[in-house]
Amino acid sequence: MKKTVITIARSFGSGGRTIGKMLSDRLDIPYYDQDLIKLASEESGIFEGLFGEADEKLRVGLLNKLSRRYKNEIVSPDSDDFVSDDNLFNFQANVIRRLADTESCVIVGRCADYLLGSREDVVRVFVHASQEACIRNVRDFYSISEKEAAKLIEKTDRSRSAYYRYYTGRDWNLAENYDLCLDTSRLDFQKCVEIIVSYIGIR
Amino acid sequence: MKKTVITIARSFGSGGRTIGKMLSDRLDIPYYDQDLIKLASEESGIFEGLFGEADEKLRVGLLNKLSRRYKNEIVSPDSDDFVSDDNLFNFQANVIRRLADTESCVIVGRCADYLLGSREDVVRVFVHASQEACIRNVRDFYSISEKEAAKLIEKTDRSRSAYYRYYTGRDWNLAENYDLCLDTSRLDFQKCVEIIVSYIGIR
Repeated sequence: MKKTVITIARSFGSGGRTIGKMLSDRLDIPYYDQDLIKLASEESGIFEGLFGEADEKLRVGLLNKLSRRYKNEIVSPDSDDFVSDDNLFNFQANVIRRLADTESCVIVGRCADYLLGSREDVVRVFVHASQEACIRNVRDFYSISEKEAAKLIEKTDRSRSAYYRYYTGRDWNLAENYDLCLDTSRLDFQKCVEIIVSYIGIR
Repeated sequence: MKKTVITIARSFGSGGRTIGKMLSDRLDIPYYDQDLIKLASEESGIFEGLFGEADEKLRVGLLNKLSRRYKNEIVSPDSDDFVSDDNLFNFQANVIRRLADTESCVIVGRCADYLLGSREDVVRVFVHASQEACIRNVRDFYSISEKEAAKLIEKTDRSRSAYYRYYTGRDWNLAENYDLCLDTSRLDFQKCVEIIVSYIGIR
C-alpha cells in the first residue's frame, strides 16, 4: 500500500476507536488517539495533563486557572508562556501534520480530517451508528445502564461537536467533510474495516 | 447478488445520476429516477405533468392552481379528488415501496432512503463533491458558464433540501441518514461504482 493517512471521526459509541485499532492491525501501520496528547506534550514541553484536560472538549472557566500550570511551574497569566487551549490545539495540530508527513497511520478524532483534508494521501472516514446501536455498545463497553449510556453519549457528542465546530467552523456530522462515511449499525466492525481497506485499494 | 435496493441521494453536480446508471448497468438491475413519475402517474391515474412539476421541489402558490388539473379533467378544489403535493408524494412513495418489494434496483432521489430505511435489503448511498468539482461537472454537462453552473447548483440543492426536509423531517446532508457516503471529487465515477459494489459484497 502506498503511503496513506486514515483519519477517523466518530460519533460516541459507534465503534470508531475499535475500527481504527483493527484497521491499524490489518494494515500494520501505527494508530494514534490519546497518544497524540503524549506526543504533543513531549514536543511542546507542556504538562501532559493540560492536554488531557482540553482533549476534544472546550473548557469554559477552567481555562484561566489551568493554563497557569506549565510543567509543574507557576506561570504568570501575562507571561509569554501563557498556555491557552488554542495553543494546545495548535501544538497537537503540528504533531498530527508531522505524523502525516512522515508515515502511513490511523488518527482518531482531534479534527485530523480538517487539518489534513487538502492532502492527496489522506482518507477522511466518519463512522456513525443508530442511537440504539450506540447505546448498546456504550452500555456493554462501560458496564453501565442504558440510561447512563444514553446520557454519556449525549454529553460526549455535544462536547465533541462544539470542539469540532470551534476549531474548524464546520458541523462534524455533515457528509461533505469526509471522503467515506459508514453506518456501523448496518454491519459489524470487521466488515467496516474491510470496506475501508477496499476503498483505499480502489481509490 | 441477493436482492438489494440501492437508494442514491446526491448533491447537484456530484454525479449521483451517472453513478446510479453505471451501477444499474454493472449489476444488471433496473434504474429509477424520473421514470418514477411515469409509474406514479400510471398507478394513480393522475396527469404525469403534475408529478413532474412537483418533482423533488416544494411548490408554493402553484399548488392550488395546478392541483385542479386531474387527467385533463376539471376537478373542483373541494372535491375528494383534490390532488395536493402531499398526495403526489404519497403516490410516488407507494411506487417506490412496491418496487423495493419486488426487485433489486437503483432508485435516485425522491427521499427513497427515508422511505425504505428500515428494510434490511436496502443500501442507502449519499454522494457529494466539492463545490469546485460540482461546478465543473454541471458546466460541462449543460454547456453553461461556471457562474451559471454555481447558480443552478445553489438553487437546485436548496430546493431539494427543502423538499427532503419537508417530507422526512431531516437534513439531507447529514451522514447519519445513510449507510454509505462518498465524496466523488476524490475518485472518478467508475471507482465510486466499484466501492458501492464492494460495500454490497462485504455487507
